[in-house]
Amino acid sequence: MGELATMFAPDRVAVVGATESEGSVGRAITSNLAADFDGEVVPVNPNAEAVLGRQCYEDIGSVPGAVDVAVVVVPASIAVDVVESCGEVGIENVVVITAGFSEAGSDGASRERRLRAVADEYDLNVVGPNSLGIMSTGVDMNATFGPENAQPGPISFMSQSGAFVTAVLDWANDRDVGFKDIVSLGNKAVLDERHFVAEWGDDPETDVILAYLEGIENGGQFIRTAREVTQDTPILMVKSGRTEAGASAAASHTGTMAGSERAYEAGLEQAGVLRVETVQELFDYAGILSGQPLPESDGVAIVTNAGGPGVMTTDAIGDSDLDLASFSNDTIDDLTEALPEGANVYNPIDVIGDADVERFREAIRITLADPNVGAAIVLACPTATLSFDALAEATVELQAEYGTPVAASLMGGDSTREAQATLSEAGVPTYFDPARAVRSLDALREFREIQAREYAEPTEFDVDRERAREVLESAKRRDTNSLGVEAMDLLSAYGIPIPEGEIVDGETEAREAAERIDHGDGVVMKIVSPDILHKSDIGGVEVGVPAEEVADTYEDLVTRARNYQSDATILGVQIQEMLDLDAATETIVGMNRDPQFGPLVLFGLGGIFVEVLEDTTVKVAPVSEPEARAMIDEIESAPLLRGARGREPVDEAGVVETIQRLSQLVTDFPAILELDINPLVATPSGVSAVDVRLTIDQEQL
Amino acid sequence: MGELATMFAPDRVAVVGATESEGSVGRAITSNLAADFDGEVVPVNPNAEAVLGRQCYEDIGSVPGAVDVAVVVVPASIAVDVVESCGEVGIENVVVITAGFSEAGSDGASRERRLRAVADEYDLNVVGPNSLGIMSTGVDMNATFGPENAQPGPISFMSQSGAFVTAVLDWANDRDVGFKDIVSLGNKAVLDERHFVAEWGDDPETDVILAYLEGIENGGQFIRTAREVTQDTPILMVKSGRTEAGASAAASHTGTMAGSERAYEAGLEQAGVLRVETVQELFDYAGILSGQPLPESDGVAIVTNAGGPGVMTTDAIGDSDLDLASFSNDTIDDLTEALPEGANVYNPIDVIGDADVERFREAIRITLADPNVGAAIVLACPTATLSFDALAEATVELQAEYGTPVAASLMGGDSTREAQATLSEAGVPTYFDPARAVRSLDALREFREIQAREYAEPTEFDVDRERAREVLESAKRRDTNSLGVEAMDLLSAYGIPIPEGEIVDGETEAREAAERIDHGDGVVMKIVSPDILHKSDIGGVEVGVPAEEVADTYEDLVTRARNYQSDATILGVQIQEMLDLDAATETIVGMNRDPQFGPLVLFGLGGIFVEVLEDTTVKVAPVSEPEARAMIDEIESAPLLRGARGREPVDEAGVVETIQRLSQLVTDFPAILELDINPLVATPSGVSAVDVRLTIDQEQL
Repeated sequence: MGELATMFAPDRVAVVGATESEGSVGRAITSNLAADFDGEVVPVNPNAEAVLGRQCYEDIGSVPGAVDVAVVVVPASIAVDVVESCGEVGIENVVVITAGFSEAGSDGASRERRLRAVADEYDLNVVGPNSLGIMSTGVDMNATFGPENAQPGPISFMSQSGAFVTAVLDWANDRDVGFKDIVSLGNKAVLDERHFVAEWGDDPETDVILAYLEGIENGGQFIRTAREVTQDTPILMVKSGRTEAGASAAASHTGTMAGSERAYEAGLEQAGVLRVETVQELFDYAGILSGQPLPESDGVAIVTNAGGPGVMTTDAIGDSDLDLASFSNDTIDDLTEALPEGANVYNPIDVIGDADVERFREAIRITLADPNVGAAIVLACPTATLSFDALAEATVELQAEYGTPVAASLMGGDSTREAQATLSEAGVPTYFDPARAVRSLDALREFREIQAREYAEPTEFDVDRERAREVLESAKRRDTNSLGVEAMDLLSAYGIPIPEGEIVDGETEAREAAERIDHGDGVVMKIVSPDILHKSDIGGVEVGVPAEEVADTYEDLVTRARNYQSDATILGVQIQEMLDLDAATETIVGMNRDPQFGPLVLFGLGGIFVEVLEDTTVKVAPVSEPEARAMIDEIESAPLLRGARGREPVDEAGVVETIQRLSQLVTDFPAILELDINPLVATPSGVSAVDVRLTIDQEQL
Repeated sequence: MGELATMFAPDRVAVVGATESEGSVGRAITSNLAADFDGEVVPVNPNAEAVLGRQCYEDIGSVPGAVDVAVVVVPASIAVDVVESCGEVGIENVVVITAGFSEAGSDGASRERRLRAVADEYDLNVVGPNSLGIMSTGVDMNATFGPENAQPGPISFMSQSGAFVTAVLDWANDRDVGFKDIVSLGNKAVLDERHFVAEWGDDPETDVILAYLEGIENGGQFIRTAREVTQDTPILMVKSGRTEAGASAAASHTGTMAGSERAYEAGLEQAGVLRVETVQELFDYAGILSGQPLPESDGVAIVTNAGGPGVMTTDAIGDSDLDLASFSNDTIDDLTEALPEGANVYNPIDVIGDADVERFREAIRITLADPNVGAAIVLACPTATLSFDALAEATVELQAEYGTPVAASLMGGDSTREAQATLSEAGVPTYFDPARAVRSLDALREFREIQAREYAEPTEFDVDRERAREVLESAKRRDTNSLGVEAMDLLSAYGIPIPEGEIVDGETEAREAAERIDHGDGVVMKIVSPDILHKSDIGGVEVGVPAEEVADTYEDLVTRARNYQSDATILGVQIQEMLDLDAATETIVGMNRDPQFGPLVLFGLGGIFVEVLEDTTVKVAPVSEPEARAMIDEIESAPLLRGARGREPVDEAGVVETIQRLSQLVTDFPAILELDINPLVATPSGVSAVDVRLTIDQEQL
């Protein structure tokens, strides 16, 4: 069990602010707790002798004996003092219901800072503030002020919205969906999603973790925790504020600035979280993940008495990452023998409209015995010959016998009621719409793949960290935040190949450098100035400059820079070797920082692919070798690197290594806020970072 | 009313094959009809005196008086004879329940051909064969053998799957969803989707048309009919067999070859059909389209007592084509006055957790009065202060008062039951999941846009049809099905610009032609052979050939062609002017034929865009000017034609006109099976078809 185990299995819970006053939150919590809790409820209130028949104490300090959890429902002005008292008497777990913290202006925010400090001082587990409370059906504890109590079940659920907890409970009780623990996270001043993910990952009674979140507090730590937990326990998450409109609504609702959706998308994927968008998906997937085993392969068999719905189901499989199973010859033979003429023995199996339960049973049995079948869908329309109830029983029996995951779609209304109950009770999910059955099976498949992941450690390349630091320090000495080609050394310090070149100051130096660097095709010359970000746009780059023109070109470049901005700082002109661009593809490797997830590494093809088609992918750093490799797979234009249209494939390993080395660089130096290698030229024989731009935060140096 | 009006409002229905035999289809239909039908049921069966208390006739010919609909449930061997008798006695509408037609091998297929011929001869409206039957609640007619009858309502529904009709009815009755007419289409030997779309478009009692189809019989005609109908009545369609797996399942189920999904996607969009993928969407959208008015604008207001679900709803709006409404200053002022401190007066409006129905009512009223609000979502979580029932009543009242479409999301279970009924009865849709409310409102928006469409007639360009025919005829004379650059004349006959050029035979001719054509940059030379499709691959194209090398190059091209295929037919060498490709973009305009929709015109950018990124779009021809224009908008790489990255925009009008002219060409000549202009070079000053390839069907010439 995790560190928070006693929070969800306490023997004694104190309610500070307990009262009998009608309509108050303090009464609601006390009475919810008093109703069923297996342990002892201890009211605390200086103005009462007893609350709901229980002896009441003046303050938390005067409660005799150990208290496992204190629920705080006092006014905001004294709430932090109460929490401090809890710490003083050695209570480890505190649930702060009280509102009026960071969600309520600057006074509230400073109150929340103090709460955090107190929690730190006493090493307290604090839920909230501004929380609806917590529940655990393991000890029949309802320490919330909501109107509904949870039924027991294998799902643990956290929510950043208290109202959503209430809504989900009302809905779930109507459908006999049960929970182990529920937490209303409130403002997450101390405990956040990561702590509960870790706790429930250790809880043998939690089969599935559900989360409704509007933000994640510490992306990097969350990823590490979630990766571990999802080796056993699936995490399903609605992360709202996905869209621009939603993010701004979330910001106004919770008062916090959300990170970018791209960062969440990448980070949650890297964390192994199954992200869903709607409440229906959340509970569909929770249901099947807690009720059915994982499929051993992706082939799905459909057994139906109705051709049309069979086609719809097949379409849904086509939309998913599942396949329509190909049956073995034995299966085909057995089905041919078992089914009447006119039946379809190929997938989807059509047992035809006059099938009774026995024919269905035979077909399901033969199907589940086929090793090519990873999962099955039992799909039935109402007919005169079929009893839904009997079909449900047969399905449950066969699923248990073969241990293959099964989902049902009983396409009817009232006539399916009893059958639905039979299936649900046995953990076989059932839906009217067969597309939902397919999507749920697809969630099983996805979790199987998550569970099978082996997360590689990021490679630690041997780099010259001191030289890199010197490049950044020298920018700081010049008091500049933007660096360009003058920072190429930063890349080469981290082993990223750059073209041969040097920065010169003066025509003579330029000529001498060009003589050394020129392979015979001339050289590339670029103006070097922190004030000029788009060098090409002002004519600050010349390509293929022959030896005899180097001096004049030097003058031209400086003149153009002066014409563009007369007081521009000019650090010189870069003389660079010409690359053979015939078989080259321009790529871009970049990075920026997300407030929640930290450094995000970006990869894509250059030019129109990034500017017009926006065909790029990002991952949260540090990026491991398989992750860097996956980034190439993730862009649509990847075939262009891999020999599309008769070209020679580029050095993909070089690209992969550059992504990793960049990841290491930006992880090592938090002072680097943004960095773009654009282009990173990739050829069949290697890669070369032709240009670089970065922004730094001098204070972090 | 349409031509099929009497089919759905008959006075007398004969059941040929009526019987009392338990468990038989004949009995099921007769008793379903007998139960409620407003008109008279006439049993026909030579072996019975009476069926279910009604006098039985020996054959359809001996039934006295007029019969409006004959339902045929006799064995397949005599079914067509019975239909013929119906024709002989002047019955106009026949529903063939009998199976054993094209779905059952070649004997069945020939039976179906005969049925079609009989229907033709007597001008019969035939539903089926292999149909579950038809229903119309207008006259309480259930002429099906299914177990369920429909409740009355504003939806008319056709289905290519009989089982799906049964499933939908069972489900719909459970939810009080009602229908006007229902048709099980069966094999669609005579009447198909188009006829019922036309009929229901004319039926004032049908507000929404629903269709489950696995294929469409005549795409072109369907598009014309549907365009007219959807000026008033929405058509919602599940077209199954969307995916490759689904299409092959559909083929094996219905025995018909489906057209390509791309053709369906384009054709149904051009037809104004709202295509949906799941049964849930089908009925969600049918419900809101029949219950709510169309929104006048895209801004949606959210009124909620729960911040978190408000964010989820905003996300769903971000995913849709709707917007979060921006309120007027008056609205903000009014809301500020009406709502307590802590409430959010910006969209989504948060009336906060302690709101009662009066506070909700005020907020909804102020919102609906704002002209920027096109639609509203009332979103509520269970609280101690809110009555869902009262909220439902207030919502219904205010919706009726303001006439703005409203959807509700009551996020609870049992406690929302009564409120759901109140809302549904008034036509206000309600869902647990707010994302469904948003998607349903988005369907309203989409239908508003369909209704507002003005379909342009395709432009009729002045073309030289005879010259084009001559090009095709000459290919036929050579007995060739594949044409290449030798068919450039076909394009110029239809006014599509081609580069200056001619096909020559011999070195001298080549030199002379090059002298005329060369602008100073040399000429392009291409081998012309119906046996060589990929000229570049065998070195069959040379670019920028100067005058002095033309003769040698001629020899080289012919030698390479011979080396590639010694017996290749060589029609000569094309000498073409050099185009200035500096500001040019290569596009591709192509065409193929779909079995259901006929000629499909394709547009995209050439090279990697078509080959690697598959960034193309198609439309069913004939293509009007606005449709051709839309094709450019539909590709992702369109910005490259429009001046992305500092380039000069190309002559978009020239591209648009070429698409239309190609559309006219392939519409005029059904003999053209496939045609690709690749590339169509587009420059700022015009377009030019540099190469062409086509396949023809000689028999159609």
